[in-house]
Amino acid sequence: MSANRLIYLPLGGAGEIGMNSYVYGYGPKGKERLILVDLGVAFPDMDTSPGVDLILPDISWLADKLDRLEAIFITHAHEDHIGALAPLWPQLEKKVYCRKFTATIGRLKFEEAGLPVNQIVVVEARPATVEVGPFKVQFVPVSHSIPESSALVIDTPAGRIFHSADFKIDHNPVVGEAWDDARFAEIVAERPVKAMTCDSTNVFSTHEGRSESTLGPALTDLIRSASGMVVATTFGSNVARLKTLAEAGRAAGRTICVLGRSMKRMISAAEEAGVLSGFPRTVSPEEALEVPRRNLMVLATGSQGERRAASAQLSRGKYLGLEMKDGDTFLFSSKTIPGNERGVLRIWNAYSEMGVNVVDDQGGKYHVSGHANRPDLEHVHRLILPDMLIPMHGEHRHLREHVRVATEAGIAAAVAPNGTMLDLTGDVPEVVEHVETGRLYLDGSALIGALDGVVRDRIRMALNGLVTVTLILDEANKPMGEPWVELMGLPGLGRGERPLAETLEADLDEVIGRLSRKVMADDDKLEEEIRKVTRQVTMEEIGKKSEVTVVISRLVAE
Amino acid sequence: MSANRLIYLPLGGAGEIGMNSYVYGYGPKGKERLILVDLGVAFPDMDTSPGVDLILPDISWLADKLDRLEAIFITHAHEDHIGALAPLWPQLEKKVYCRKFTATIGRLKFEEAGLPVNQIVVVEARPATVEVGPFKVQFVPVSHSIPESSALVIDTPAGRIFHSADFKIDHNPVVGEAWDDARFAEIVAERPVKAMTCDSTNVFSTHEGRSESTLGPALTDLIRSASGMVVATTFGSNVARLKTLAEAGRAAGRTICVLGRSMKRMISAAEEAGVLSGFPRTVSPEEALEVPRRNLMVLATGSQGERRAASAQLSRGKYLGLEMKDGDTFLFSSKTIPGNERGVLRIWNAYSEMGVNVVDDQGGKYHVSGHANRPDLEHVHRLILPDMLIPMHGEHRHLREHVRVATEAGIAAAVAPNGTMLDLTGDVPEVVEHVETGRLYLDGSALIGALDGVVRDRIRMALNGLVTVTLILDEANKPMGEPWVELMGLPGLGRGERPLAETLEADLDEVIGRLSRKVMADDDKLEEEIRKVTRQVTMEEIGKKSEVTVVISRLVAE
Repeated sequence: MSANRLIYLPLGGAGEIGMNSYVYGYGPKGKERLILVDLGVAFPDMDTSPGVDLILPDISWLADKLDRLEAIFITHAHEDHIGALAPLWPQLEKKVYCRKFTATIGRLKFEEAGLPVNQIVVVEARPATVEVGPFKVQFVPVSHSIPESSALVIDTPAGRIFHSADFKIDHNPVVGEAWDDARFAEIVAERPVKAMTCDSTNVFSTHEGRSESTLGPALTDLIRSASGMVVATTFGSNVARLKTLAEAGRAAGRTICVLGRSMKRMISAAEEAGVLSGFPRTVSPEEALEVPRRNLMVLATGSQGERRAASAQLSRGKYLGLEMKDGDTFLFSSKTIPGNERGVLRIWNAYSEMGVNVVDDQGGKYHVSGHANRPDLEHVHRLILPDMLIPMHGEHRHLREHVRVATEAGIAAAVAPNGTMLDLTGDVPEVVEHVETGRLYLDGSALIGALDGVVRDRIRMALNGLVTVTLILDEANKPMGEPWVELMGLPGLGRGERPLAETLEADLDEVIGRLSRKVMADDDKLEEEIRKVTRQVTMEEIGKKSEVTVVISRLVAE
Repeated sequence: MSANRLIYLPLGGAGEIGMNSYVYGYGPKGKERLILVDLGVAFPDMDTSPGVDLILPDISWLADKLDRLEAIFITHAHEDHIGALAPLWPQLEKKVYCRKFTATIGRLKFEEAGLPVNQIVVVEARPATVEVGPFKVQFVPVSHSIPESSALVIDTPAGRIFHSADFKIDHNPVVGEAWDDARFAEIVAERPVKAMTCDSTNVFSTHEGRSESTLGPALTDLIRSASGMVVATTFGSNVARLKTLAEAGRAAGRTICVLGRSMKRMISAAEEAGVLSGFPRTVSPEEALEVPRRNLMVLATGSQGERRAASAQLSRGKYLGLEMKDGDTFLFSSKTIPGNERGVLRIWNAYSEMGVNVVDDQGGKYHVSGHANRPDLEHVHRLILPDMLIPMHGEHRHLREHVRVATEAGIAAAVAPNGTMLDLTGDVPEVVEHVETGRLYLDGSALIGALDGVVRDRIRMALNGLVTVTLILDEANKPMGEPWVELMGLPGLGRGERPLAETLEADLDEVIGRLSRKVMADDDKLEEEIRKVTRQVTMEEIGKKSEVTVVISRLVAE
């Protein structure tokens, strides 16, 4: 019996939506050769990560084993699969394999970050094969909401793995390769699939997914019936939707204008990579100003309510000269990701105040998902017939439900959230190790650990406000004047309309005057006393215990 | 022609979901006698109001006209209608009229706040009439998700107003009075309705609403098929749902235990007010521990993911001795209010990790709304046949859509967001004034204005972190030692792993050393320089401009 084993380890993306990052390994225990599939980001929110720009997976485990890492594979160019590549690549410095469109996007990011673009290698679709160490990897076209999403066939001496990546079943996807059952039957006929790692995002959607191509007629009707200007938003990377929207606009006799840098970049990247052709001619915002409103259709970024994107800008007034008016129409050709509802509704209400008619996806009329729903997942399980199924790309509840679905169909399955190392060598997945994983925050230009306390302090200041107390002591440890109090994020007046800062200063002065010589000589103890009194007084005066920063300055004779 | 006019003025609730507060007036212009209908709160969120406890309407306009205010009417005991009554009543000190259940809840709140409970007056349903000034007001039972919600018939010399309050059409509401078209036909037959102010919450829901009574069978099936303990959550004030759930649990052979103070309080208030009877016997958490898991059903607070409520507590481990386990079932018999998704999903995923089966409302199988959907609204418009319709209780988009629906049916209608005073005297609503309205934050025990800057500073600290710079100057305006820097919510290391505080201190010291005597002598200018340098340095070192607090201490000879 061989001592080699085949392992799977998610470092991100399993137990959350976002920051996908999956490791496969083959070899003797602890010496497996490794590949990394995807390196994505997650997005911060005010509740848990205020001020943070991006959330990245903590890949320390992998960074400690660079001598064992063969290569990186990126399945597609969505941010939750490629977004952490440029920030984290310097820790890995391995070749990156992906298909052409993904490479185009990846290289743009590498260029911006000053990284070597030649490290991103374009791979054709299967049967083209990348051989690295004990792995033979092929890219299999699947339909999704971005061009050239690809499942991976990963062959190892211990068997074949089918890594689904993000996919849906779409026989007419408008842009990119149509879904074809035969393609997958062939893979299985060639060599049975030992393990399938599978997208779980839509496992709770019980109806069959719908094709991108079903949207065109309804969109055309909507746009045709609109009396003023029409603005539509969707994900900038959903090139097929952009084409569907633009063509519907053209069919309704409108000139198309694209607003928003990320959207333009995606369209030109898709054209450059050869996956998009026949996109209707577009005009610049300046040219759009010359087009009668009822002949104009604008495609705008910001479907998730992002404050700086074009949709939000237009909801606040003029943007690049363009302005929405009474009687215009705004279309969300998109689904709101949980957590983004308030931002989206803010835009909707702002448009409502302008008299703009806002239309949302209306339960699928103007939007279809890019992920496989439950019946589609079941269909693919039956196509691929894996010995075992490992759900990925989902919150814990998605992974668990997906395991339930697979188990009911008689497939061995396991919930493996981030950090769970599975041994796939045998007939069933076996948990062999728990690896420490976590999140890094890209905060401005700094990378900080999610548990470093930095963001915790921000949250505390946001919830409790901050009192800064400054105290100057002379050489005899006697206060030189009263302590000085500054308030940030706290009401200026306490009970009986007394200024809070003055109350604090007076009370602190009194307490400090009573402290022993020993305490006055000890910074830690003195700080602790000041902190305690400050929190007591704010509690009495304004009903909340503030955060406190204490600055003690001791003057020494020169 | 009379110089008297009939006015309507929303101070809250129109243009937002929450803090309902509507003024009606009758009399000569500027001297109208006034009544206030409802005084509710809205709920804060981390994005816009971190650390805030409750959001209240700014009723300064009304508080300035106390000599004209006749009384306060509360339509029902939901927090968004009654929640601001206790905190703001001391500014108004007028009699409060409401039905018995609402009064029971109101008096509990008044007691806690040390306010005179005898100021809350119980009114029977129509034909009972409250006469205050030129107003005759009757309470009309409507169905909703809390007992004794009441529309108001407000008679004035200028005509009859029908204030719908929150309602749905439910002919079998489990708790409370069934909907009866005849009741409304009678009102109209008695005297035609001049203006109807109407709930707009569900105007975008295009299907007919469903009765509370339709839920029982599906719930019983679900609970019967569950193998372990069942925990169900819903709004604590939804007494009908609590009864539906408890009865379904009993039908499935389970003992009922209620977890969560607010839920218990609502049940006993409903029993005390005589609107709830036959609620199944419940056991305490201690007694529940003795019940076999498969014979136990728990009703728990926290359907919106609130961190301190019973549902969240149970998702984190033991709560009052009770604990969820592998194979148990948790039911959300509720809808997630936009903005609360993340909190709800956090609970769902925590349960998933425990192996608990989580069931959500599944598109209406286990939850029905308490508000009238569009077809129901249209039905009521036809019943009441008002000359004009003024949508209330909704975001701007809801109000606007509701106006569209009314206008299509040939009813004069107007969008009147908070602060819009309408003259209803003529045949159509006419905007006559814009009144300043706004939001107050109850923050601990302090009331602060939403625009006071306090919360803005908290948000800035959360997004940007804070640097506190302390500088001590001698009598000659010379620095005594280096400036001292404290960081809060900022990474400790800047570029090249240099400690950020040290870099800041060194750079500030250098810049301060070069400042002119004039600047050194001027606190404002010196502070401005320090602030500028601090922001530049943080930008260079960590890629973000921090917030800055500067404390300059000038030592004076004693």
